[in-house]
Amino acid sequence: MKAQLKMVNSIIETPIAPLPQELYLPTLKQALVEDLGLAGDVTSQLTIPENKKATATLVARADGIIAGLDIALTTFTLVDNSLQITPLITDGQFVKAGQKLATVKGNARAILTGERVALNLLSHLSGIATTTYKMANAIADLPTKLLDTRKTTPTLRALQKYAVRCGGGHNHRMSLADMVMIKDNHIAFAGGLQQALQAAKAGRSHALKTEVEVDTLQQLEELIALGGADIVLLDNMPPEILKKAVAMVNGKMATEASGVITPQTIRKIAETGVDYISAGFITHSAPAFDVGLDVI
Amino acid sequence: MKAQLKMVNSIIETPIAPLPQELYLPTLKQALVEDLGLAGDVTSQLTIPENKKATATLVARADGIIAGLDIALTTFTLVDNSLQITPLITDGQFVKAGQKLATVKGNARAILTGERVALNLLSHLSGIATTTYKMANAIADLPTKLLDTRKTTPTLRALQKYAVRCGGGHNHRMSLADMVMIKDNHIAFAGGLQQALQAAKAGRSHALKTEVEVDTLQQLEELIALGGADIVLLDNMPPEILKKAVAMVNGKMATEASGVITPQTIRKIAETGVDYISAGFITHSAPAFDVGLDVI
Amino acid sequence: MKAQLKMVNSIIETPIAPLPQELYLPTLKQALVEDLGLAGDVTSQLTIPENKKATATLVARADGIIAGLDIALTTFTLVDNSLQITPLITDGQFVKAGQKLATVKGNARAILTGERVALNLLSHLSGIATTTYKMANAIADLPTKLLDTRKTTPTLRALQKYAVRCGGGHNHRMSLADMVMIKDNHIAFAGGLQQALQAAKAGRSHALKTEVEVDTLQQLEELIALGGADIVLLDNMPPEILKKAVAMVNGKMATEASGVITPQTIRKIAETGVDYISAGFITHSAPAFDVGLDVI
Amino acid sequence: MKAQLKMVNSIIETPIAPLPQELYLPTLKQALVEDLGLAGDVTSQLTIPENKKATATLVARADGIIAGLDIALTTFTLVDNSLQITPLITDGQFVKAGQKLATVKGNARAILTGERVALNLLSHLSGIATTTYKMANAIADLPTKLLDTRKTTPTLRALQKYAVRCGGGHNHRMSLADMVMIKDNHIAFAGGLQQALQAAKAGRSHALKTEVEVDTLQQLEELIALGGADIVLLDNMPPEILKKAVAMVNGKMATEASGVITPQTIRKIAETGVDYISAGFITHSAPAFDVGLDVI
Amino acid sequence: MKAQLKMVNSIIETPIAPLPQELYLPTLKQALVEDLGLAGDVTSQLTIPENKKATATLVARADGIIAGLDIALTTFTLVDNSLQITPLITDGQFVKAGQKLATVKGNARAILTGERVALNLLSHLSGIATTTYKMANAIADLPTKLLDTRKTTPTLRALQKYAVRCGGGHNHRMSLADMVMIKDNHIAFAGGLQQALQAAKAGRSHALKTEVEVDTLQQLEELIALGGADIVLLDNMPPEILKKAVAMVNGKMATEASGVITPQTIRKIAETGVDYISAGFITHSAPAFDVGLDVI
Amino acid sequence: MKAQLKMVNSIIETPIAPLPQELYLPTLKQALVEDLGLAGDVTSQLTIPENKKATATLVARADGIIAGLDIALTTFTLVDNSLQITPLITDGQFVKAGQKLATVKGNARAILTGERVALNLLSHLSGIATTTYKMANAIADLPTKLLDTRKTTPTLRALQKYAVRCGGGHNHRMSLADMVMIKDNHIAFAGGLQQALQAAKAGRSHALKTEVEVDTLQQLEELIALGGADIVLLDNMPPEILKKAVAMVNGKMATEASGVITPQTIRKIAETGVDYISAGFITHSAPAFDVGLDVI
Repeated sequence: MKAQLKMVNSIIETPIAPLPQELYLPTLKQALVEDLGLAGDVTSQLTIPENKKATATLVARADGIIAGLDIALTTFTLVDNSLQITPLITDGQFVKAGQKLATVKGNARAILTGERVALNLLSHLSGIATTTYKMANAIADLPTKLLDTRKTTPTLRALQKYAVRCGGGHNHRMSLADMVMIKDNHIAFAGGLQQALQAAKAGRSHALKTEVEVDTLQQLEELIALGGADIVLLDNMPPEILKKAVAMVNGKMATEASGVITPQTIRKIAETGVDYISAGFITHSAPAFDVGLDVI
Repeated sequence: MKAQLKMVNSIIETPIAPLPQELYLPTLKQALVEDLGLAGDVTSQLTIPENKKATATLVARADGIIAGLDIALTTFTLVDNSLQITPLITDGQFVKAGQKLATVKGNARAILTGERVALNLLSHLSGIATTTYKMANAIADLPTKLLDTRKTTPTLRALQKYAVRCGGGHNHRMSLADMVMIKDNHIAFAGGLQQALQAAKAGRSHALKTEVEVDTLQQLEELIALGGADIVLLDNMPPEILKKAVAMVNGKMATEASGVITPQTIRKIAETGVDYISAGFITHSAPAFDVGLDVI
Repeated sequence: MKAQLKMVNSIIETPIAPLPQELYLPTLKQALVEDLGLAGDVTSQLTIPENKKATATLVARADGIIAGLDIALTTFTLVDNSLQITPLITDGQFVKAGQKLATVKGNARAILTGERVALNLLSHLSGIATTTYKMANAIADLPTKLLDTRKTTPTLRALQKYAVRCGGGHNHRMSLADMVMIKDNHIAFAGGLQQALQAAKAGRSHALKTEVEVDTLQQLEELIALGGADIVLLDNMPPEILKKAVAMVNGKMATEASGVITPQTIRKIAETGVDYISAGFITHSAPAFDVGLDVI
Repeated sequence: MKAQLKMVNSIIETPIAPLPQELYLPTLKQALVEDLGLAGDVTSQLTIPENKKATATLVARADGIIAGLDIALTTFTLVDNSLQITPLITDGQFVKAGQKLATVKGNARAILTGERVALNLLSHLSGIATTTYKMANAIADLPTKLLDTRKTTPTLRALQKYAVRCGGGHNHRMSLADMVMIKDNHIAFAGGLQQALQAAKAGRSHALKTEVEVDTLQQLEELIALGGADIVLLDNMPPEILKKAVAMVNGKMATEASGVITPQTIRKIAETGVDYISAGFITHSAPAFDVGLDVI
Repeated sequence: MKAQLKMVNSIIETPIAPLPQELYLPTLKQALVEDLGLAGDVTSQLTIPENKKATATLVARADGIIAGLDIALTTFTLVDNSLQITPLITDGQFVKAGQKLATVKGNARAILTGERVALNLLSHLSGIATTTYKMANAIADLPTKLLDTRKTTPTLRALQKYAVRCGGGHNHRMSLADMVMIKDNHIAFAGGLQQALQAAKAGRSHALKTEVEVDTLQQLEELIALGGADIVLLDNMPPEILKKAVAMVNGKMATEASGVITPQTIRKIAETGVDYISAGFITHSAPAFDVGLDVI
Repeated sequence: MKAQLKMVNSIIETPIAPLPQELYLPTLKQALVEDLGLAGDVTSQLTIPENKKATATLVARADGIIAGLDIALTTFTLVDNSLQITPLITDGQFVKAGQKLATVKGNARAILTGERVALNLLSHLSGIATTTYKMANAIADLPTKLLDTRKTTPTLRALQKYAVRCGGGHNHRMSLADMVMIKDNHIAFAGGLQQALQAAKAGRSHALKTEVEVDTLQQLEELIALGGADIVLLDNMPPEILKKAVAMVNGKMATEASGVITPQTIRKIAETGVDYISAGFITHSAPAFDVGLDVI
């Protein structure tokens, strides 16, 4: 893994634009309330002297890409705004196991009270960034770009899609309202591709792109005959079929492949020449990135 | 995997007590708002006739344990409370790939509008339940029980810990306020184990258990000499040391092992005779369980 | 005005897809709490017998287009879910002064308690729909479409943009995240159009369209030379310049005109042949539509 | 208009008492989330260098009365609390087209990210203040005072009624709980004015005033015979009838006129000698006040 | 106490107008979440069979006035909306120890899960109603009315003031915005009573009453000389001074006494002839009313 | 009372660990909104010059124990964060009538605007602390400890239980999820003590203690025969029976007495030798502690 991870600078365009705080502060506050229960950190209250000072270091316990560091560190500020917080790296950077990510200085109880929420968030988002990076890096020498999907953990989409950007991935639509995306079920309910596509084109917003899913080359042919769309989603096609599909599209639409995309399969898919590959895996199945808090 | 999964009834005590709806309705509503954007499902609005009726089936695409089915189905009710929803199995049950989980009948647009939020939740929670089950099942013939941790995804702890219960795991403390859990940092800040333990015992709540982390047999010896605690956490000890620790404790405290517990390592740990094994892996790194929605 | 309004069916495509309730229920509840104070409708409590029954009719007091009827009627259900509510028309329909819109039957106190919130919402949204209609209708025989903007009343964007759809208008982007829209300030900060456009094209999402604002024909020429965008915003150009701009674009980009668009100016702008006209006026300056509640 | 607006100091009592921040911060945060979508200002992120600094000026594009300047400027602080914000005028002041209202210095992306929410709020509230001022100023030489109503935009009442105060208007009751206000429907349901008035007087709060609506001089006579109320609402009476009504009341109750009050009609109504005129127009139909943000 | 309580019908005007549900549902939901923790009622889940049915009865364990019964019973519906709930009395009624208040039938676990929140609310509000009644009843034969104050428990004012109404008390102002109430500190800051009163009279809302606090007969004299107010608050005056004050006012203002009003002192105060007595005691110091839940 | 209160240092272990702000800020904000109405403190706005400065002192008007001082003072910061706030004592301290608790300096309007919310919270929590202290102090020379219960005011449990800690009391479980507590109803529904206890022991969490309620010595005997629990709740037993129960338990379980525990009865109960006494009285029936705000 390390060899690959060294290439990170080539695919992640840092600095990553930070997420506006109104998009994550409510989540942090809710997470703190969840972990504090109704009495807070009883262990620290009982065992640590009230004014004990400490310095803690967040440390990577694996190689990977960091996402959400400033966000996670805000947790400590919410617990005690007199804590001195110093991030040592920025989101989107590659770190090695053992590397220090940030220091937190101040009241010892406060540091331990915020520890778990901060680490949970950082390890979750860095896990997504790291998995994203691994898959994006596997196709870094090809023109194909890696996209996320709407297969995110409920209520955490803004954060998870931010982590995808940190890992060198690109965001597909954010919500149902962001794009006209005609899938098999829409076609069936509309009574056919032609009906669905006409209705969509007659529809309202000039601001939205239109993407159409096809599962076979025959459907693709029909789509092309109907004038195409902005993007065609080539779903669950094996590489050899994908190659033919790309040839048929011939640059008239952007092409996107989807369906069981994993770190193992992505390169073969990319080599077919599709413009984009979308993978739910990077948000719904990325393992946590191991981060610890060492106290001096 | 299938052979193991057949044993499910021996370790999961169904029926699982359902989670009260006040603990998940706000999450569902927030997830819907997140996915609806400001205009809702524009594709369905454009392409599907307003009064089109449909029947959809939620189908497992892998073998596993289901968690959160009724919760996820509530999403459809929030979108359109005239939808007819029929769950076909209950949480904690083992299903095979291809097995139908529920049917949803009614307005076609409403079904597609709620689809993604419902599937995201169901696949996330069933993923946790399935990974929990795999690890719990690996030690099902031993008396050791599998515990979760506080290493959960921010704001989703009640749901994730519910999924652990569905998978045959057991819950460790829910929040910082639920137990006095003295870890290495508390001991360091308190000035030693004796000081930390005395302070904790002099502390307030008779309702809380006390657990103490030890990293070496020497620390364990010190803990025993000080009169012990309700539970001792034996952290990051290799199996042979764990075995000695269990012998030293000799039933006077409950014993819990932790540290890099994975599906690969859990059985060796359990064979040391510890009462509990706690694993962050089941909540922070469980891959999603694949569920689809088929429309007729 | 009436003559124009008869044409409504030609530009409003009813039925309007309803707004999902999760996008407006929190607003309704907050509005009710705002109007109830801490003691509720003291006048009705004091003067009307507790079990008095009544039938109320919502009546248009002007000609116009209705928007938000079902949404507004939900207010009564939140006050007393035993009220019988019967809408008599649907959103997007043209009504004449004196026309009945809905009836509400049941507890008299409950009807009066919900009256003001329901009417405030209905008159606000129908005012937007009616103003939108007047402007859209003024160009109904031309291919140009009327768009809204992000110039909406804070926190009410989903509702106001829904009202625009009811009035025969079309929605521009919903939020800052929905489109790459390069305006004069972006160009200035980027160091020029070329830099801004290159950066945008190198940017992340394949799902988003790109629109570029130009204020002069010279800027338009530069944009075209750089390869153009999906849409060009022709800002504050007089009709004769607009006509030249449309000719220069020559169908290679969608064209959108903006800047002081009012019911008086819109037709001249549309006659230049632009594809779209965007007008903040329809959301930020539409007068309320007069609706009353008559009680029998 | 300008001539009239010069008189502003005579009817607006500055300084206006500021609205407590707990009454508007939740609205600002919700408005920002609404405009940020799930990814924030993608255009600024893509086109503007991360550390670009800028100075922006909020500028009036018309003559009018400013309301909500400090509130609107708080938006920028929520986006980036390192921005330097300098208001140049205060709420309730008359400004001329082209006049600078405030400067915002700091990160260029942050300024553009907050721009729309801040301008939307400021132009909405200043629109209400300006319309209020025009109507209040039209009767500034008469003792009659201009009142608002409960005909406000749902969830924005505290802000809109604040804007009315900025424009030289006065607030009628804030909610249903603030006054006993007996209207035609209450009288009908109570079985007559006598019954309604008796019930109200027997009612609970000594803290609330009582107002009674009458539509005819005969009803007014009945009200006077019953002992009157604190205030009588003379609804929809033409000026000549109003004059008679004021004479009949003869100072024994405060008199308030309502019904189709517009900038055109208000002076004639005021000349009848009524103490108050209440107008929904100033909150539900005031056009936005044009404000721009110029970046240097 | 019983003798007094029999008189209840003479001072409590039932039926009490119910509180709109939007004013208490958020409180109920928050209270449930508070009591459920993250796992709900673990004891019932473990010990009671899932489908066990039961019938529970809410029973008064003391004599008193009931307030909040329907509100409290709503808790059970939030836990399980299939529970059958039958209130047996209505708010504002006198009950005797042992009297049944309501029955709840259905799932046994659900009943026990909702029990504590429902009882906590009912005993709190009925405690306020009962204490209110005792004090109001002590002066029931006199024309003086008992008022509450703004000395309520934070966030529960709407509920507590409702309970006061159930107990035969009357509500003073609901919030700082409901009345102009000039107290000693205002007078001091204004530079004297004259300045404060003039400023208040010149102030904005015709909808609000004005009340002025005086502590001595000399201040009262000054107030009268200045033209008085709607209400005069005679603060902390002994009965003999109060009597003189009432005589001085001579019906020109409503009179209100305040200051250390308890069940022991109220009658002496009322016998001075004041119109109103306001007592913080009934909301901030009323002991809980004992209610139990008996399960069959 | 004063004699008793002098002993305070022996039972209250100061400093009390402060409550994390995320557990009370939402309550403070909601309380402020509740008291501000939609227009704020109209009296101060009208009568006090805008820039008037003042110094206010919070003063105890009785002897007692302070709880929630820093929390209550935060109210002033929310109203105006330029106010200078100086607490003079800390939570858990004994104060005498007339003693100064804190000073607040700055804008006079802001001080009066925040006064009532701050005082309401401080007097409520200090009332609980003072009543707790009186009961805890009455048994200070005995080993028995005083516990609170779940009989708290809805939504204020974290604050009230914090006040109990300030008064020298100890917290029982925080929520239904914190302990397995088998009461009479559980036993009845389970079909007997044996069934309930077995089910509970087979249950999930190793982190939770188990407590069992018994009402008679016979039930206690049965419990002991079944192996006991962590804690036995001896409910509603008279002192002489309690003494026998304590002897029977003989140190094998912790013993807790409950049932009509008041300041009058607590000592007799404690003298029976029980380890704990739990009293709902201290949270649901503690009268407010009198605190005033004096302005210089």
